[in-house]
Amino acid sequence: MLRRSIYLRLSLSSLLIFVGVNPVSGAQDPLPLWNDGPTKQAIVSFVGKVTREGSSGFVPVPERIAVFDNDGTLWAEQPMYFQLFFALDRVKALAPHHPEWKDQEPFASLLKGDVKGALAGGEPAILKIVAATHTGMTVAEFERTVKDWAAAAKHPRFNRPFTECIYQPMFELLTYLRANGFKTYIVSGGGVDFMRPWADRVYGIPPEQIIGSNGKTKFEFRAGKPVLVKLPEIGSIDDKTGKPININLQIGRRPLMAFGNSDGDLQMLQWTTMDHGDGNTYPRFGLIVHHTDAEREWAYDRKSHVGTLDKALDEAASRGWVVVDMKRDWKRIFPF
Amino acid sequence: MLRRSIYLRLSLSSLLIFVGVNPVSGAQDPLPLWNDGPTKQAIVSFVGKVTREGSSGFVPVPERIAVFDNDGTLWAEQPMYFQLFFALDRVKALAPHHPEWKDQEPFASLLKGDVKGALAGGEPAILKIVAATHTGMTVAEFERTVKDWAAAAKHPRFNRPFTECIYQPMFELLTYLRANGFKTYIVSGGGVDFMRPWADRVYGIPPEQIIGSNGKTKFEFRAGKPVLVKLPEIGSIDDKTGKPININLQIGRRPLMAFGNSDGDLQMLQWTTMDHGDGNTYPRFGLIVHHTDAEREWAYDRKSHVGTLDKALDEAASRGWVVVDMKRDWKRIFPF
Repeated sequence: MLRRSIYLRLSLSSLLIFVGVNPVSGAQDPLPLWNDGPTKQAIVSFVGKVTREGSSGFVPVPERIAVFDNDGTLWAEQPMYFQLFFALDRVKALAPHHPEWKDQEPFASLLKGDVKGALAGGEPAILKIVAATHTGMTVAEFERTVKDWAAAAKHPRFNRPFTECIYQPMFELLTYLRANGFKTYIVSGGGVDFMRPWADRVYGIPPEQIIGSNGKTKFEFRAGKPVLVKLPEIGSIDDKTGKPININLQIGRRPLMAFGNSDGDLQMLQWTTMDHGDGNTYPRFGLIVHHTDAEREWAYDRKSHVGTLDKALDEAASRGWVVVDMKRDWKRIFPF
Repeated sequence: MLRRSIYLRLSLSSLLIFVGVNPVSGAQDPLPLWNDGPTKQAIVSFVGKVTREGSSGFVPVPERIAVFDNDGTLWAEQPMYFQLFFALDRVKALAPHHPEWKDQEPFASLLKGDVKGALAGGEPAILKIVAATHTGMTVAEFERTVKDWAAAAKHPRFNRPFTECIYQPMFELLTYLRANGFKTYIVSGGGVDFMRPWADRVYGIPPEQIIGSNGKTKFEFRAGKPVLVKLPEIGSIDDKTGKPININLQIGRRPLMAFGNSDGDLQMLQWTTMDHGDGNTYPRFGLIVHHTDAEREWAYDRKSHVGTLDKALDEAASRGWVVVDMKRDWKRIFPF
């Protein structure tokens, strides 16, 4: 009975994948928010190729791994990373318990509203802010804080929750890939503990498929209950070479598709799409979201401090990475 | 069309889970290699409770996470950890390139076949062996080496490949849980790079569901191709408190069920089954494999150097963890 039900599951699964594949070649548009043109064509044709049984480029479902950067790829990152908004809000909320911050940088500047002045202290200043706002509590307490913040805080330009400042065409793409048997992952420089509390609700990506920067934690008992306490020690920075390193550590497979928007994603795109010399001939796909729409979003690349896109843009042509022109390729940017 | 096919997938998925649940209450035995008795009853009744829709203990599929230790829980670990056999075989294979090892401990003893003498050097000796056999190559090269070893090496007592020295009743349990919507993970003190090359084939557990001890890696280009090089620096030891720490880092959910066999699994069992004070009332399940069968396998617990089971055995009763008596509960031990 068990054995029979497993066979039943398997054959029904194949059927489902077949159903999932249908939209690709079907009459209806699988990506209605993407304008017709070479970008959309490249995506749909790649997905069709790897999912069509019998096609020379067919890839079995378990190998269909797609990795997405988050900041600037799935949601906006201007005028500064949203996690920094969170950190600044936390500094304000915690300030009454830290009277000494009035005379200590970077907190003194932050509390006066001078973010630029605070960040002038470079990496040490950022680490102080992270330590003060992201460590010392249990992971459960931090999760609660992030959830409350995500429900209340609003983006200064759009006056909408930050979790609504996601790119709707990319959400459509996530859904389309999952319907075609892909497992979608986030691989972001943002903190893994900062993303997990809302990413399942907002993107449909579960906690175990989110990889991010992280700090060390300590297992201990508090009031007789097991807790994990967030420590002010960096575990891993999930950016640049940290991305392929963590993909290998946490997924253990080379992705089939990679999506990014900045030089922080360069090594993830290289690792995903370049020949490893191992005889694996699956087709691979790399894509860069190029921010070209100053009116509906922002326009920036090589000279931006946030989301610098320079080397990866240079390599895109020679490596065959698809470059999304947001202004040209997307019918809409945000859900609102 | 896309939207409709997603709904279709969802409703069919629910159906599949229902089909998967059937065996629990069905006429046929879902765990034929387990003798009838309290242990088997506890497993089947727990799975029935969390999978029966409408039951007060019902748990949605995405939260059905089951974590398994490997050494001594899914496969044997005597007379020493299998990964140590691998390391010793590698020392022998590499010795011709290291004439200096003849006069250097722990290698000199190892090459004379004196494992005990080599390991008398304690942790520094083990780290030297690991560095010499597990680092310096690319992850792809290491994977190849492990695959070749797993295909050729044999267990000294059973004269079978190590990958056949798995506990068949536990394999049956893995299959049963997956048929009931569980995602099964390995969370082992063994090296993640050592387990992934064969675990999917042997246990049906894919690379992204394997968590283990790991070393740092470096991303670079060799002959124009991107590689990850294994460095002689420890990333994380996935044992004791390292287990809940890595479960939180890589899964980001509290498991529903945890399976172990030694004090190295104590904190994973505590983290999984004890109240976190967060109001989450899902039922939880902890299980310890107690090695009680000197004839068919080995009998050891409190005083064993490998797989010491002492504190966790003491806590089992008060925490309600199920203790498997291998001799009494399992009809068969190995697949052969």
